[in-house]
Amino acid sequence: MKLYAFKWVPEFAQGLVKDLRVRWACEEAGIPLEIKLITFENSKAAEYRMLQPFGQVPALVDEDLVLFESGSILIHLGKKSPSIMPADKIGQARATTWVFAALNSVEPYTASEFYPEVSKAKLADLSQWLGNKEFLESQFTIGDIAMTTVLREADRRKILDPYPVLLKYLRRCEARAPFKKALEAQLKTFAENTPPAN
Amino acid sequence: MKLYAFKWVPEFAQGLVKDLRVRWACEEAGIPLEIKLITFENSKAAEYRMLQPFGQVPALVDEDLVLFESGSILIHLGKKSPSIMPADKIGQARATTWVFAALNSVEPYTASEFYPEVSKAKLADLSQWLGNKEFLESQFTIGDIAMTTVLREADRRKILDPYPVLLKYLRRCEARAPFKKALEAQLKTFAENTPPAN
Repeated sequence: MKLYAFKWVPEFAQGLVKDLRVRWACEEAGIPLEIKLITFENSKAAEYRMLQPFGQVPALVDEDLVLFESGSILIHLGKKSPSIMPADKIGQARATTWVFAALNSVEPYTASEFYPEVSKAKLADLSQWLGNKEFLESQFTIGDIAMTTVLREADRRKILDPYPVLLKYLRRCEARAPFKKALEAQLKTFAENTPPAN
Repeated sequence: MKLYAFKWVPEFAQGLVKDLRVRWACEEAGIPLEIKLITFENSKAAEYRMLQPFGQVPALVDEDLVLFESGSILIHLGKKSPSIMPADKIGQARATTWVFAALNSVEPYTASEFYPEVSKAKLADLSQWLGNKEFLESQFTIGDIAMTTVLREADRRKILDPYPVLLKYLRRCEARAPFKKALEAQLKTFAENTPPAN
């Protein structure tokens, strides 16, 4: 399975680039990944746009299948391992709903500087849902992978402090060994490919 | 199958509320829906938040399953009918990728007034992908349902005019009989429940 990721990004984006979701899911599921590194210029070229029409990362090639959104890649990987998505239909659908909730109901607001009030409402709603739960559903799923990466960006923007439930959830998910391995792998690549200072 | 939708919304939102995606998919697939109408106040109450943690519409109840994001509801419905999602794994994954592309790569920018340049880039990329294609993939799928509803909002905001490929695609999808029936049903509910003028 080939994952396309950036060779290097500026420091503010390091640890937040969305191939992290895929790397993490693969670490949780024990799925080996071959990483194909591309530059920002490669990502905008016609050849890569055949795989990823918007010139973004990640893109995944799994034999005859090409996927280009981190959310759908998570679902694809989830189907391969019950450790990140339950095998039953209801569990699968609930995990899928949380991937969309993270990427469509929370991230567009919390990753933006333009919606401080909507962001607060979304984070309060999420905190209310989580309450004393360990994870979003009764087991760790791809929904937690998506939500953790969204909350990491919110935390970087310093808007999580009023939500201790969310901070605890975030630290709990970030403490998982597969997350740490995935993050290390992304950061190591960036460190190795840092352009020389002018 | 029960779909939660608003009893009434202000005119600017009519025809754009996201239960339209679900109504449309059900019309395409021939799946009967029982509509549960709620007010804006109901949507924020604790009882409804058990179904929909963010107090939004739509939410879907299908026997023991509760789903609350239009994207995951589309995937759930797609699994019930090859007329909106191919039955093979590759076709399913590609349709799923386009649902995420619509809701996560396009909508957060094109539905916002704050990202005019990113919106243009996304629409240009999408136009480039579509080219002479009839649909996003080789058959009509839930990806087209999601993308059409996203482009309808962009069209309402008058930002689609520079993209004739996208306008033609939008009109082609809107011309489908199941879309027209779904839109009519949403608008009829709003017309019937218009609050009396002060």
